[in-house]
Amino acid sequence: MKTVKVAILGLGTVGSGVYKLIQKRADVMEKTIGAQMEVKKILVRNMNKKREGVDASLLTDNWNDIIEDEEIQIVIEVMGGIEPAKTMILEALRAGKNVVSANKDLIAEEGHVLLATAEENHVDFLFEAAVAGAIPIIRPMKQCLAVNDISEVVGIVNGTTNYILTKMTEEGMDFSDALEKAQELGFAEADPTSDVEGLDAGRKVAIMASIAFHSRVVFPNVFTEGITKITAKDIEYAKEFDSVIKLLGVAHNTESGIEVGVYPMMIHKEHPLASVRDSFNAVFVHGDAADDAMFYGRGAGEFPTASAVMGDVIDVARNMAYGCNGRISCTCYKNLPVKDIGDVKNKFFIRMQVTNEPGVLAAVAEVFGNHKVSITRVVQEHTQPHQAELVIVTESVKEKYMKQALEELLALPSILEVSSIIREY
Amino acid sequence: MKTVKVAILGLGTVGSGVYKLIQKRADVMEKTIGAQMEVKKILVRNMNKKREGVDASLLTDNWNDIIEDEEIQIVIEVMGGIEPAKTMILEALRAGKNVVSANKDLIAEEGHVLLATAEENHVDFLFEAAVAGAIPIIRPMKQCLAVNDISEVVGIVNGTTNYILTKMTEEGMDFSDALEKAQELGFAEADPTSDVEGLDAGRKVAIMASIAFHSRVVFPNVFTEGITKITAKDIEYAKEFDSVIKLLGVAHNTESGIEVGVYPMMIHKEHPLASVRDSFNAVFVHGDAADDAMFYGRGAGEFPTASAVMGDVIDVARNMAYGCNGRISCTCYKNLPVKDIGDVKNKFFIRMQVTNEPGVLAAVAEVFGNHKVSITRVVQEHTQPHQAELVIVTESVKEKYMKQALEELLALPSILEVSSIIREY
Repeated sequence: MKTVKVAILGLGTVGSGVYKLIQKRADVMEKTIGAQMEVKKILVRNMNKKREGVDASLLTDNWNDIIEDEEIQIVIEVMGGIEPAKTMILEALRAGKNVVSANKDLIAEEGHVLLATAEENHVDFLFEAAVAGAIPIIRPMKQCLAVNDISEVVGIVNGTTNYILTKMTEEGMDFSDALEKAQELGFAEADPTSDVEGLDAGRKVAIMASIAFHSRVVFPNVFTEGITKITAKDIEYAKEFDSVIKLLGVAHNTESGIEVGVYPMMIHKEHPLASVRDSFNAVFVHGDAADDAMFYGRGAGEFPTASAVMGDVIDVARNMAYGCNGRISCTCYKNLPVKDIGDVKNKFFIRMQVTNEPGVLAAVAEVFGNHKVSITRVVQEHTQPHQAELVIVTESVKEKYMKQALEELLALPSILEVSSIIREY
Repeated sequence: MKTVKVAILGLGTVGSGVYKLIQKRADVMEKTIGAQMEVKKILVRNMNKKREGVDASLLTDNWNDIIEDEEIQIVIEVMGGIEPAKTMILEALRAGKNVVSANKDLIAEEGHVLLATAEENHVDFLFEAAVAGAIPIIRPMKQCLAVNDISEVVGIVNGTTNYILTKMTEEGMDFSDALEKAQELGFAEADPTSDVEGLDAGRKVAIMASIAFHSRVVFPNVFTEGITKITAKDIEYAKEFDSVIKLLGVAHNTESGIEVGVYPMMIHKEHPLASVRDSFNAVFVHGDAADDAMFYGRGAGEFPTASAVMGDVIDVARNMAYGCNGRISCTCYKNLPVKDIGDVKNKFFIRMQVTNEPGVLAAVAEVFGNHKVSITRVVQEHTQPHQAELVIVTESVKEKYMKQALEELLALPSILEVSSIIREY
């Protein structure tokens, strides 16, 4: 009986999950890939750390034990970070080994280099787990939807922020309490910056946009804005407008270039993304043939992420059985420009505190009008004797015009504060 | 430059969509599959029918023109029905041609025969379009989720009935008005039996269960119950219970066998399937590693179905380029029993009209108790001076016990009518 031998780089949460799944499925692996699967080596930093349930003889802290072992045909990179992951993946690919990776940071920056190297060496480089955890999204876009001209990909691709926004929406918590609760439950890290500022989501949306639009989008192309400024008051207005606030990774393929960003948005409650709750993720795709589609599931966690990694590993093993590794590689055959955020069009919800006197609305409307901003909705609420809260919802307008209008608004004596600016989906 | 030559069997809605997509994507096909794609023949029944936009020289009503043409490497079967589709597919596979099919009727009955023939002849037989139209579901289950032990697949896989139930829920329509509206809009056929009685959904759930559980389930194994008896009153109760009524195709892999059925169910409004509206479809899957996942999109229509067909055709062409056709074939390597519906456990909502006198509830409760049915909820409403509506919700119980209890209930003089029996998810 044949045996496919693999190495795992990194034995953190995901690495452990992968190791356990390979053991757990040993009895059906032959039915699945026509061979047994064996973990031959696991690369760790600390050889002395106690690791429950792992055969200690597999551990090594020496990369040469793996790269020089010709029996190892699949390298599973689940250590994260740019280096040494990048060097190891490139060396593995050049040595004719297939690589499966869950490393969104690296792929969002250097995916094209890794894919090109895989192609040159006729091996697979797969990374389904790098976007939205367990949710099948890369393979569906590269294969099932391959005939489509995809114009839009919008995702809730960060579970931490979706959990926080769900708590704020359903339990009236404010941001800091919801964040604290997420940290207690292990959904948020001690330093939550990468999640709450939209950086994590930004990396994922760069990868998805590249695949959807057949043109390379890298993380530095992605405008990101987080959820730290969202208040209970904004959540209330969203409800009033039959919407919810979600942190969305948004990518559009327009005639003038690719638009890509991450920001909190008000989205109508009937949109399928609106009902994605707690730490779940979902990716919504619009194709010219398939129309709307959405993929929903767990975006993180030991076994969900390991599920996606193993889906790739099994695919590589099936390719090995048929001698067709590398059959689907880079699909970026276009070279489309990525638009500056200033040229991206969005609708805006703007909440501000104004003095309560005649003519304020007229002055505000004039400023917007001067900067090509059309207003679709105005709500004014008297909050104090001489003060009112003014909410303006705009039509779709280029971000740079909105920015100019806001600067001018802030100079008006009747505008006491611009409390929130939230985009509308 | 290489050219992949295909034949299309049937030029109805889906066939036309496939033909148009191949023309529309001619400019990017080489980037996608490394070759051009050409429709060499189209099999039609009526050569004299006028067909807008189709090159008439491609049409034939002679199967021999296709089966004997060695240049045709992919046969796309989109004519539907058991025969002559079955014979043609088998002949094509035996002639070494790859086959892509959207034929759920045939695959739900004879899928194993077709897959075995494909395997013997080292060619592909793919059928993503046969289940839930444009929604990627077969490839995600066979590949992305391949490491999972899938215990549950539940789907809204019939757009017509989901449209009807949405209208009943959101606009208070009754069944016959909603059906009429669906027929006006072309969502329902003149004879809606296959949709409203759950037969169409039953075929799809048989195919999905086979793939999810690695064990053959055929359409005759599937218990089906339609939505014709659902009333506005039932919809109201569902709302009261924070639920909606959906026609669900349900498949569970239990220790005592596979449970598979199609029936209307009350499902809690927070479940992701509950927010699938109008004619959209969705399939919810639970795997031991991936946890919950859901796939949402268009379940029917010219281009959505053609999108799924073309995803398969492109996959076949990529396999041809690498000489690996047949790399993923039948994945049914188990032989699990399918349970009789009587042994399947469900929770029930029972609405009945009873005489309004002391002791009725006690009598009803006794009958349920005698048949191992536990009650979790009772709602009684006085509808007329001497009559009341009694709603009982039960715990999970084997269908056969519920059936016995209902027979005994109907014999009680105080039970005037059992108005509805709806399962709860």
